[in-house]
Amino acid sequence: MKIGVPKERRPGESRVAASPETVRKFVGLGFDVTIETGAGLGAAITDDAFTAAGATIAPDAAATLADADVVLKVQRPEPEELALIKRGAKLAAILSPYGDADRVKSYADAGVDAFAMEFIPRITRAQSMDVLSSQANLAGYRAVLDAAYEFGRAFPMMMTAAGTVPPARAFIMGVGVAGLQAIATARRLGAIVSATDVRPATKEQVQSLGATFVAVEDEEFQQAQTAGGYAKEMSPEYRAKQAALVAETIKKQDIVITTALIPGRKAPVLVTDAMLRTMKPGAVVVDLAVEQGGNVEGSEPGKIVEKYGVKIVGHTNVPSRIAVDSSALYAKNLLNFLTPLVDKEAKALKIDWNDEIIKGTALTHDGAVVHPTFAPAVPP
Amino acid sequence: MKIGVPKERRPGESRVAASPETVRKFVGLGFDVTIETGAGLGAAITDDAFTAAGATIAPDAAATLADADVVLKVQRPEPEELALIKRGAKLAAILSPYGDADRVKSYADAGVDAFAMEFIPRITRAQSMDVLSSQANLAGYRAVLDAAYEFGRAFPMMMTAAGTVPPARAFIMGVGVAGLQAIATARRLGAIVSATDVRPATKEQVQSLGATFVAVEDEEFQQAQTAGGYAKEMSPEYRAKQAALVAETIKKQDIVITTALIPGRKAPVLVTDAMLRTMKPGAVVVDLAVEQGGNVEGSEPGKIVEKYGVKIVGHTNVPSRIAVDSSALYAKNLLNFLTPLVDKEAKALKIDWNDEIIKGTALTHDGAVVHPTFAPAVPP
Repeated sequence: MKIGVPKERRPGESRVAASPETVRKFVGLGFDVTIETGAGLGAAITDDAFTAAGATIAPDAAATLADADVVLKVQRPEPEELALIKRGAKLAAILSPYGDADRVKSYADAGVDAFAMEFIPRITRAQSMDVLSSQANLAGYRAVLDAAYEFGRAFPMMMTAAGTVPPARAFIMGVGVAGLQAIATARRLGAIVSATDVRPATKEQVQSLGATFVAVEDEEFQQAQTAGGYAKEMSPEYRAKQAALVAETIKKQDIVITTALIPGRKAPVLVTDAMLRTMKPGAVVVDLAVEQGGNVEGSEPGKIVEKYGVKIVGHTNVPSRIAVDSSALYAKNLLNFLTPLVDKEAKALKIDWNDEIIKGTALTHDGAVVHPTFAPAVPP
Repeated sequence: MKIGVPKERRPGESRVAASPETVRKFVGLGFDVTIETGAGLGAAITDDAFTAAGATIAPDAAATLADADVVLKVQRPEPEELALIKRGAKLAAILSPYGDADRVKSYADAGVDAFAMEFIPRITRAQSMDVLSSQANLAGYRAVLDAAYEFGRAFPMMMTAAGTVPPARAFIMGVGVAGLQAIATARRLGAIVSATDVRPATKEQVQSLGATFVAVEDEEFQQAQTAGGYAKEMSPEYRAKQAALVAETIKKQDIVITTALIPGRKAPVLVTDAMLRTMKPGAVVVDLAVEQGGNVEGSEPGKIVEKYGVKIVGHTNVPSRIAVDSSALYAKNLLNFLTPLVDKEAKALKIDWNDEIIKGTALTHDGAVVHPTFAPAVPP
């Protein structure tokens, strides 16, 4: 059984899909692990560190992927990488299949069984495999650091001989995994933090982290959470009321961090240009949804835009900006995903295609697109 | 009485020597305050904010400085700015006179009474005027943020479903004002912090902030503090022992921040190339002394150098990287310095040239260099 881990090729991607810790565990499970030379450098893992953990270093992607039964990646493979993967191999990565049916079909055509790690179901048994959570957590931390870096003031209150520096006010919009970690990090740094979300269950979480909860708490709000734990789309009336409350709140903020994503859809606009105009000069807004269309009007992927004296930070691929930890956790997620698929006696993969986790993540199997969201419609 | 505040012209200088708060106070003291247009923009202060505080906006440096009785700046004036200042005017700024006797003489030749704000004596009465303290405090905060920004991991321990991320280890070298704030900030962010200094009095300060004190505590160490509160230069023997201890400590660190300055002298090398080689890949070293020759071998002013997988961060003018707060405190220092010099009845400056604070800071007076460190030697 051979695992291949190629170097990530997408520009700006510093992560790697294995760590010395996971290599050691895979070797213990009976795998041979081959890592492309330099694959770990963006995450401060040298070839030597991988070798010491029991991996073989290959000189290029072709040598890494040749004969690999399992291919582990962060980003989905480009066509030229896919061509190097053998028929029957399993591929696990963040495959970003929405809106790209041809890409999904290409895995089937290549005979590769492709697992989209972002579709790990939100069930207890799969928590340790949940790449969205592990990466969003670090993105929430990093968003606060990125805000603090661009901000011309300190976060904590400082009592100095020359006078008192007031604490920064930070407002976190969207209280999922990223938002919660952003609240915790901004609080650690000493800011006065408030947060908003349309899901009533988040109120207690926000308050337990020492932040203030801001939301229009009417009847619609009480119902506003899907079974999957995501935010529902709210009515135009609710959104207008909430926008008015947010507009009042935003005026007073030094830091705003937006984290609202709806899976497979364009992100909702939470901060309008009109709101930006009311903000204090020197304020910083970080848009974690910038790659999904943006929560902030005028944010641009990969850029820091200044409008009305306010900096709008649109870093892309924020987990990659903290690549050592995000790689370690992502690699661990993959280890946790693969471990139950290994038949330890036979030293081979044994996949139960009816398992909820497999059904949730498998896009392709045996040359066909099998995921319900992407499979061609069955004729009635 | 007119105060003029020109825009800072040195590249990379975002601070400004006045704030709306200090303008308001100066107007209350009977001053007319003129600010050059755009002078506050780097510190997020608009012309409108200055106008609302009672200032007049001037279109250029010449109009700002014409007839000014008092000129407030952050950096020392360039010759072309000095030429715009009238004879008899008072100038307060960070004048950086060491090694530049011609520059000091030029203030005398221009008939400008120049006060070097970095020479404010370390006495209780002058604490609120101490620009070195106010700026070093923010530099210490910013150094940790700059380190966290370059670091591929999170500072705090994070317990996640995929596993535990260990906390970062940070080592602060030099426990003055900057070092203490660096310790506090790294602790806030959740790192495990240790610190070293050759002054015995710092041990308790380090421990009171929840950090571990690291030093060779022999007899020489017990004596190693000057009356001014600065570190003494230590013997070669002590330095060798301390370097060995530091070398052992540094191996285990993720973050090192060096803050050791000796006034008017080249900064001591604390982190050698041999030590850098032993550090973990992905570690970050911030050299706050990079402009004074550097505490870290291989650090370069204005650059981030990577050596042996370790990033050596050499940002210059770190207080300017947090310009809103550093301007506010610097402006407050100047207000506190000037206020006692105002004769409120006569609405005029009345300077006691024998006062300890004036004697400590005045480089020139009535066309002559008067500061003992820079005055021409008196013939015996």
